[in-house]
Amino acid sequence: MVFSAEIICVGTELLLGNIINGNAQFLAQQLARLGIPHYYQTVVGDNPDRLKKVLAIAADRARLLIFTGGLGPTPDDLTTETIAEFFAAPLVEHPEILADMERKFAQRGRPMPTNNHKQAWLPAGAEVLPNPVGSAPGMIWQPRTGLTILTFPGVPTEMQRMWHETATPYLQSLGWGQSVIYSRTLKYWGISESALVEKIGPLLETQNPTVAPYANYGQVKLRVTARAETEAAAVQMITPIEAQLRQIGGEDYYGADEETLPLVVGNLLQKSGATLAVAESCTGGGLGAMITSIAGSSGHFVGGVISYDNQIKTSVLGVDPGLLQQDGAVSALVAQQMAAGVRNLLKSSWGLSITGIAGPGGGTPAKPVGLVYVGIAEPNGSVKNFRYQFGSTRDREWIRHVSACTALDQLRRHLMQPV
Amino acid sequence: MVFSAEIICVGTELLLGNIINGNAQFLAQQLARLGIPHYYQTVVGDNPDRLKKVLAIAADRARLLIFTGGLGPTPDDLTTETIAEFFAAPLVEHPEILADMERKFAQRGRPMPTNNHKQAWLPAGAEVLPNPVGSAPGMIWQPRTGLTILTFPGVPTEMQRMWHETATPYLQSLGWGQSVIYSRTLKYWGISESALVEKIGPLLETQNPTVAPYANYGQVKLRVTARAETEAAAVQMITPIEAQLRQIGGEDYYGADEETLPLVVGNLLQKSGATLAVAESCTGGGLGAMITSIAGSSGHFVGGVISYDNQIKTSVLGVDPGLLQQDGAVSALVAQQMAAGVRNLLKSSWGLSITGIAGPGGGTPAKPVGLVYVGIAEPNGSVKNFRYQFGSTRDREWIRHVSACTALDQLRRHLMQPV
Repeated sequence: MVFSAEIICVGTELLLGNIINGNAQFLAQQLARLGIPHYYQTVVGDNPDRLKKVLAIAADRARLLIFTGGLGPTPDDLTTETIAEFFAAPLVEHPEILADMERKFAQRGRPMPTNNHKQAWLPAGAEVLPNPVGSAPGMIWQPRTGLTILTFPGVPTEMQRMWHETATPYLQSLGWGQSVIYSRTLKYWGISESALVEKIGPLLETQNPTVAPYANYGQVKLRVTARAETEAAAVQMITPIEAQLRQIGGEDYYGADEETLPLVVGNLLQKSGATLAVAESCTGGGLGAMITSIAGSSGHFVGGVISYDNQIKTSVLGVDPGLLQQDGAVSALVAQQMAAGVRNLLKSSWGLSITGIAGPGGGTPAKPVGLVYVGIAEPNGSVKNFRYQFGSTRDREWIRHVSACTALDQLRRHLMQPV
Repeated sequence: MVFSAEIICVGTELLLGNIINGNAQFLAQQLARLGIPHYYQTVVGDNPDRLKKVLAIAADRARLLIFTGGLGPTPDDLTTETIAEFFAAPLVEHPEILADMERKFAQRGRPMPTNNHKQAWLPAGAEVLPNPVGSAPGMIWQPRTGLTILTFPGVPTEMQRMWHETATPYLQSLGWGQSVIYSRTLKYWGISESALVEKIGPLLETQNPTVAPYANYGQVKLRVTARAETEAAAVQMITPIEAQLRQIGGEDYYGADEETLPLVVGNLLQKSGATLAVAESCTGGGLGAMITSIAGSSGHFVGGVISYDNQIKTSVLGVDPGLLQQDGAVSALVAQQMAAGVRNLLKSSWGLSITGIAGPGGGTPAKPVGLVYVGIAEPNGSVKNFRYQFGSTRDREWIRHVSACTALDQLRRHLMQPV
C-alpha cells in the first residue's frame, strides 16, 4: 500500500453542524505542505462502536491516521480508550502527564478535578504528544508495523500548536517534507473570474505547476501549485508562470498570499510618506477597521469619521446641506465632499469616502440596494468619485465588505500612478 | 439497518485544504432539523476509483447518501458518471436540462460551451434535482430499494437553494421532519466558561434536552437541544430549562440564537428612544462596523470618530492635550473624554469609546498589549470608564474584536438599568 494519511475528526458537534470543520482544513494544508498524500477525511460522532468501524476502514486504506477530538476529560471523550481497545492494547498511566496537568491547574490557582486523571492514560507503547496550551495531550503510536496514529484535541489553537511543535518535526524525521507541494495564491480585484480565466487561457491546463481559479466576495484568486523535492525547487517552477499571470492581470493584480488590500495600500502610502483619512456611511467603520487590521497602520492612517446620520455629513464633514437635499446622501458629489471634508478635518494627504445603500431596505428604482459611491480626495486637493452597482441580489454583509475593498482598491490604483 | 444519512463531499480542493467544508456543516444542520440521523461524513477527491470505494462503504452503512461537488462541466467533475458506473446504470440525456442550461447561457448573452452538455446526462431512472441558480443540476435517485442518492454541486449558494427548494420538500414527503432535533443557543458575556459551568452544575447532565457549553472569542454559549415529534414539542421541552439557564446567568446572559450584542444593544437604544455615537482608537472602526451590521441601525446610531492618531483625539474630540501627554492615549480619563467628546460633537444621547493596545507591538510593562479602556458618556452627561486586561497572549484580531464586544456589553448593562 502506498503511504497516505487519513484525517478522522471525532465529535458529535460536527455531525450536528454546530461547528465548521476547520481542523480538517488545517490538517489538509499541513499534509500538503509536507507532501504527504491524503485521499480521505472522515467525521464520526463520540460513539465507540462507530469510531471502531471508521478505524477499521482507515487502517485498511491509509498508513498514517490523524485523529482530532475526543481527548477531553468528560465521559463522552472516548477517542484514546476506543483506539486502545480496537488494537487490544492496555492503557498505561503516564505520571509525567499527570504532573504537567497538575502544574497547569495550579497556575490557575485551582485543584485538578478527578475527571482529568483519565487524560494521563495512553495505550501501552504510545508516546506523549505534548499539549503546551491545554490539559489534554495527544499521542504518537505505532499499534502495528506500518501504521502510525497521531491524536490531537479538537480545540483548534491547541491542535495547531501541537502539530507545529511536535507532529511536524516527527513527520520530518520520518523523511516527509522532502517532496513538497508548494502553492502561491495570486490575487486580483476589479476583474471577474470568467474574464480572467479567458485571458489566461492555456496556462490553466499546465500540469506541474497547476493553475486553479477561485472567486469569492468580489475577489478573484489564482492558485499556482507545484510539487518538487524542495520548496526552493517548487518556487523556481512557479516563478516564471507567476510572472506571466501577474503581467496578464495588469493593474487588476494586487498581491500574493498574505498580501491583502489594506496591507498593499498601507505599504504604498508609507512608501510615498502619505497619510489617509476615511469618511464612511454605509460601511459604518468597516473601512477603518479593515485598514487598521494591519499592525503598524498608525504610520499611514490618521483616522476617520463615521457619518452614518446625514446631520454628521454636514456638521462634521462640511457636506453642503443643499446638495444633500437635492442629490441625496448616496450620490457622486456627496461622496466627493465627504472625502474632501475628512481630508481637511483630519489633515491627511488622502481622503477616501464611501456612501451607498447596503440594504436590505432603503432601495428605490433610481437608487437600488447595492448602489455605492466611492470618493477620493487627492493630496493636491482634486476630488473624484466612482460609481458601483453591486446588484440587489447581494446581502448587506457582502455589499459592505466589497464596498470597503473596492474603495481600497481604487485608492491603490491612484497610489500606483506615477507622480 | 436503521435509516441514516451520510454526507459525502467530493473535491480535491478539500483534500488540499484550499477551502473549508462549509457544505458539510450546512447539510449536517439541515439533517438535524429534519430529525434524520447521520453518523458519518466523508471527504474524497475527484478520483473515480476512490469515489467508488467510498460509495461502497457508505451504501453499506447508510440509506440516504448526499453528495456535494463534482457536477461541473470540466473533465475532473466525475460524480454523476462514477455513481452511475458503480450501480451499472446507463446515462440518459435529459433534453429539459439542456434547454434550461441553454436558456441560462442565452440570458448572459453567451453560447453554451459543448463542455456543459455532459451536465444533461443522468443515470437512467434518476430524477432531476433542479438548480435555479447555476448550470449544474443534481439528481434524486434510488439505484436500489432502500437506498436514495441526492447530488448537489459544490457551490454553496447553489447547493443551499436546491436543498431548500427541492430536497427538503422531497424528504418531508417521505415522512422526515416528523421527529425534529431542535436547539436554542443561549449567549453570555462577561463570565468564563468554567465559571458558568460551575453555576449550572447538574443541568449539564440532563438527557433530553441536553445542555452543552461552548466558548470562543470571549463569548460563552450554552446549546440546549431537544428531540421531539414536533418543533413545538421540542420548544416546550426547552422552555423551562432555558428559563433556568437565563436566570442563572443573570446580567451576563444577553440573548439567544440570532441575537447578537449589537442587535440587543440596538433594541435597547430604540426602546428608550436614545441614540449612540462612538469614538474608536485601537478598534479603528470595528465598533461602528459591528453596530451597523444590523439593518436599521440608522434608527439608533448616528456615527462616530475614528481617532487613531492622537492629534485627532484633541482636535476633533476635544481630549485635553495635557492629559494625553501625562496619562498617555491608553488611559482612564482619555477614554472618558473621548466618549464625552464624541457625544458632544455628534449630539447623541450616549457616547461610547475604546482606547487600547491591540499589539503585537506598542506594549510596555506598565501598559501591556491587551490593556483596553472603555469610556461611557451617559445621557445626563456623567462619564465613566472601565479597564480591561485581555492578556498579552491574545492576537491583534482577538483583542480588537473582544474590545468592541466588551464596549457594547458594558453599554448594554447601562441600558438595562432602571432609569
